[in-house]
Amino acid sequence: MPLVRITGSHEPATLRLIGDAVHDALVAAVGIPPDDRFQILDRVPEDATVADRNFLDVARERPLFVEITLRAGRSVGVKRALYRAVADGAHARAGVRPEDVTIVLHENSTADWSFGNGVAQYQPE
Amino acid sequence: MPLVRITGSHEPATLRLIGDAVHDALVAAVGIPPDDRFQILDRVPEDATVADRNFLDVARERPLFVEITLRAGRSVGVKRALYRAVADGAHARAGVRPEDVTIVLHENSTADWSFGNGVAQYQPE
Amino acid sequence: MPLVRITGSHEPATLRLIGDAVHDALVAAVGIPPDDRFQILDRVPEDATVADRNFLDVARERPLFVEITLRAGRSVGVKRALYRAVADGAHARAGVRPEDVTIVLHENSTADWSFGNGVAQYQPE
Repeated sequence: MPLVRITGSHEPATLRLIGDAVHDALVAAVGIPPDDRFQILDRVPEDATVADRNFLDVARERPLFVEITLRAGRSVGVKRALYRAVADGAHARAGVRPEDVTIVLHENSTADWSFGNGVAQYQPE
Repeated sequence: MPLVRITGSHEPATLRLIGDAVHDALVAAVGIPPDDRFQILDRVPEDATVADRNFLDVARERPLFVEITLRAGRSVGVKRALYRAVADGAHARAGVRPEDVTIVLHENSTADWSFGNGVAQYQPE
Repeated sequence: MPLVRITGSHEPATLRLIGDAVHDALVAAVGIPPDDRFQILDRVPEDATVADRNFLDVARERPLFVEITLRAGRSVGVKRALYRAVADGAHARAGVRPEDVTIVLHENSTADWSFGNGVAQYQPE
């Protein structure tokens, strides 16, 4: 279910590794099925991403934005675990500095998803 | 009102036809005015879109993501009709496989829109 | 906190000036800290943006989409002031026609943000 949009100026192969890390984090922390992977790897020029270099005392260098749309209802604890797993995974797999990983969640509801064939698969009849 | 973002690796002319299909689906299923068209046709390299090839038993080949931001309040029935019309229309007009059409809705509220001139046109004074 | 995505076919330098205007508008109208700047300047080909040329009697020529994700809770008055400041600022700084500035807000909650290091900085423990 989640739709993940990853925006950064990183090489395509690096963005793919970051995508792997985000997916594994969603499986581990949120409990989504392993085959529930939908991602957009949005590569942009370096000057197309702007992140303050010190807001909240986080020393950012090369911005990476991870936007995740998912159904509402995850607890704060689950979201915390997700952030930790995304930042750790992006560092371990793709060498991304944890400081550079900004994550934003967008919540919606069960009826707001169609996974193909024009059907609302998550919405009971 | 809806803001539509269509993301895929399809040719620009194909994305435009898909945009036509999505707009017609919104007019027919949601009842938006015919001149209420706001779209971003987000063309990306083929390896920038990731969709599991079999999640929920839908056989995906070439991902197409249709994200629609619209005001909250549409019924489940209207959303179902929208998904059906988008998938059918994208197939009929642009040859897109219905399996490949993933649709995600983002809802917001009346005050969350400005259609130009710095005014919140949908929000009564 | 806000994450701003600006989508248009304008030159990179113009998009950057528009980004400056949006940021200043957020500081002035919404009261965000001056160092709370997170933006994606999403440059696309001219035919990738579609906006009706007359919907709601606004004469659009070259579409510019400003999407702002922020925590819920801003009043209608604050949102109105934001729209005014964005349109005026984009005109003054970057020569953008106010008619061309479409703004869409996406609201989320305190727990939906991580500003780096895998931490939910806005969510009290």
